[in-house]
Amino acid sequence: MSTLNDIPTPRALDLALEAELRHVIDTKTKPPGSLGRLEALALQMGLIQRTTKPRIERPAMIVFAADHGIAKEGVSSYPQEVTAQMVANFLAGGAAINALSRSVGMTLEVVDAGVATPIPIDRGYERLSLGLGTRNFAQEPAMSRETALEGIARGAARVRRHASLGTNVIGFGEMGIANTSAAACLMSRLCGLPIEECVGRGTGLDDKGLARKREVLGRALAFHPEAGDAIDTLATFGGFEIAMMTGAYLAAACEGMTILVDGFIATSALLVAARIAPEVREYCVFAHASNETGHRRMLAHFDAAPLLQLDLRLGEGTGAALALPILRAAVAFVDEMASFESAGVSSKAE
Amino acid sequence: MSTLNDIPTPRALDLALEAELRHVIDTKTKPPGSLGRLEALALQMGLIQRTTKPRIERPAMIVFAADHGIAKEGVSSYPQEVTAQMVANFLAGGAAINALSRSVGMTLEVVDAGVATPIPIDRGYERLSLGLGTRNFAQEPAMSRETALEGIARGAARVRRHASLGTNVIGFGEMGIANTSAAACLMSRLCGLPIEECVGRGTGLDDKGLARKREVLGRALAFHPEAGDAIDTLATFGGFEIAMMTGAYLAAACEGMTILVDGFIATSALLVAARIAPEVREYCVFAHASNETGHRRMLAHFDAAPLLQLDLRLGEGTGAALALPILRAAVAFVDEMASFESAGVSSKAE
Repeated sequence: MSTLNDIPTPRALDLALEAELRHVIDTKTKPPGSLGRLEALALQMGLIQRTTKPRIERPAMIVFAADHGIAKEGVSSYPQEVTAQMVANFLAGGAAINALSRSVGMTLEVVDAGVATPIPIDRGYERLSLGLGTRNFAQEPAMSRETALEGIARGAARVRRHASLGTNVIGFGEMGIANTSAAACLMSRLCGLPIEECVGRGTGLDDKGLARKREVLGRALAFHPEAGDAIDTLATFGGFEIAMMTGAYLAAACEGMTILVDGFIATSALLVAARIAPEVREYCVFAHASNETGHRRMLAHFDAAPLLQLDLRLGEGTGAALALPILRAAVAFVDEMASFESAGVSSKAE
Repeated sequence: MSTLNDIPTPRALDLALEAELRHVIDTKTKPPGSLGRLEALALQMGLIQRTTKPRIERPAMIVFAADHGIAKEGVSSYPQEVTAQMVANFLAGGAAINALSRSVGMTLEVVDAGVATPIPIDRGYERLSLGLGTRNFAQEPAMSRETALEGIARGAARVRRHASLGTNVIGFGEMGIANTSAAACLMSRLCGLPIEECVGRGTGLDDKGLARKREVLGRALAFHPEAGDAIDTLATFGGFEIAMMTGAYLAAACEGMTILVDGFIATSALLVAARIAPEVREYCVFAHASNETGHRRMLAHFDAAPLLQLDLRLGEGTGAALALPILRAAVAFVDEMASFESAGVSSKAE
């Protein structure tokens, strides 16, 4: 049985190398600051890895899949079976995250965090299921506090496994019909915002569907009193995949990984993780600003300016995957560029 | 001797496959439109390549380098020698564009379009020089109309060489101390905007330097009457690298390449190219919105929303290189994703 004491808690970044890293970056053959956000990324990765030569090793994407009892309330435009169908699609290699993670050179792993329908495929499927979907949080908490803690522990363990294989950059994706509803309620409760500012169209609700989703979630929030800590909030509204992602973030930071933060659901799990240990934020690179209403508010909560804005609204980790090449470029310029001195290039005239 | 009739003029995109491409994109296992700008890129590349299976073959970056007579007016914070020093740095592999093009898997070529200082390196240096830098356009036209036409022809020929090697995606970068001054004047004249809206800090001018640059360029524009066509404007204010990039854009479109458009100077060459043949625009992907004042106005002129905003202000083709992985992802999802039917995934509930 996992307890609060088992939760991995990352340390704040060690800033000992900051001045040295800035010097390395500033003496490359370019006007100071002219590589913009690549420079900030290089600094962050150097601090995380405690080196002036940051590297990207075995970049990995873990997609956590789970079902949600709240789907019974008709808050999604897709039927619940789609979760298992899409997991089978992931395992067959035919989903967007398969194509994108291959394209950018990321190892992809699919985790059964709690899908309602058993899938008769073993290859590449990590079976860490916490149950056949959460309970319907319109009527009762989605899971017990113990289950939430167990999810955090399982997600953390999975990340430690990747650390042992050498991974130092990781992203987390998700699949779960109705999980934007779980994420919106977590956001409303953890950011103290009215549900209207947190609810969006998910994967494609029309106006009527959106109104229903708002109404269902508003009632659910009113039904559960504000009480307890972030773990209780996670247990009340979260999903099994969100619980595992929470633990995954915390463990990744403890392992000194650079974390690529995907879209709305992935960021909602980071809300929980950062409430447990705010230091986790320092290991995060916000990959993509999604079009889901609420995601931009969440990003503002983290004072985050994502690297990409490509109008994605799919989840699965697609935004996180697309940001990896930008990290590669940041590492490459630090590793490969000459300095003004070594290249014999004149610096500024004055 | 090159003439106006020798300029390659691209055709408008053939839209015959548009409906079929949209069907392919829309039946992939994702909510319609949920891959955002990747979907638009896939459509554009499919139309350019006239196929429902667009590919990226031998992506190439050509960096055109040249010197500018206007540098004598003190419009840059770096001395003119830096152009040749940076070219030597490119050839030695130590510049930002070396690191970034390697990082994204692009072939890099450096072209001497007209650098003032001879560089005793042959390996990888294409010597197409039109002279040892342009004349000072504060006092006389930067080059003759004949030289501008010759530059267009040489840039076009270089791109055709890459086409013969199989390249179907290409980006153009540049190096040339004071070339933001040339680009700003081209912009002012071709877009009909006052010079104040076109002039920025280049690679790092302070307030005093910026005021001087504005004053010098304002006088230069007043000195040369508005007359002639885009070629005359190019000859008056342009650079040898800008002339070659103009021809390179036009030839790349004629060869059915997808063109990655870099920052302020690269976009100024596209202004000239699009004045000659507006169809070139349809082959372009605007890679990055730079922080150089004026670039955003130029982008608005093309009604373009660049893929990236990473605060780069370096040139060299760095923004264009960073966009290649996004094109790769667009091609990958079309090529590798399953359709709803083939994967047995339910589509929307209603």
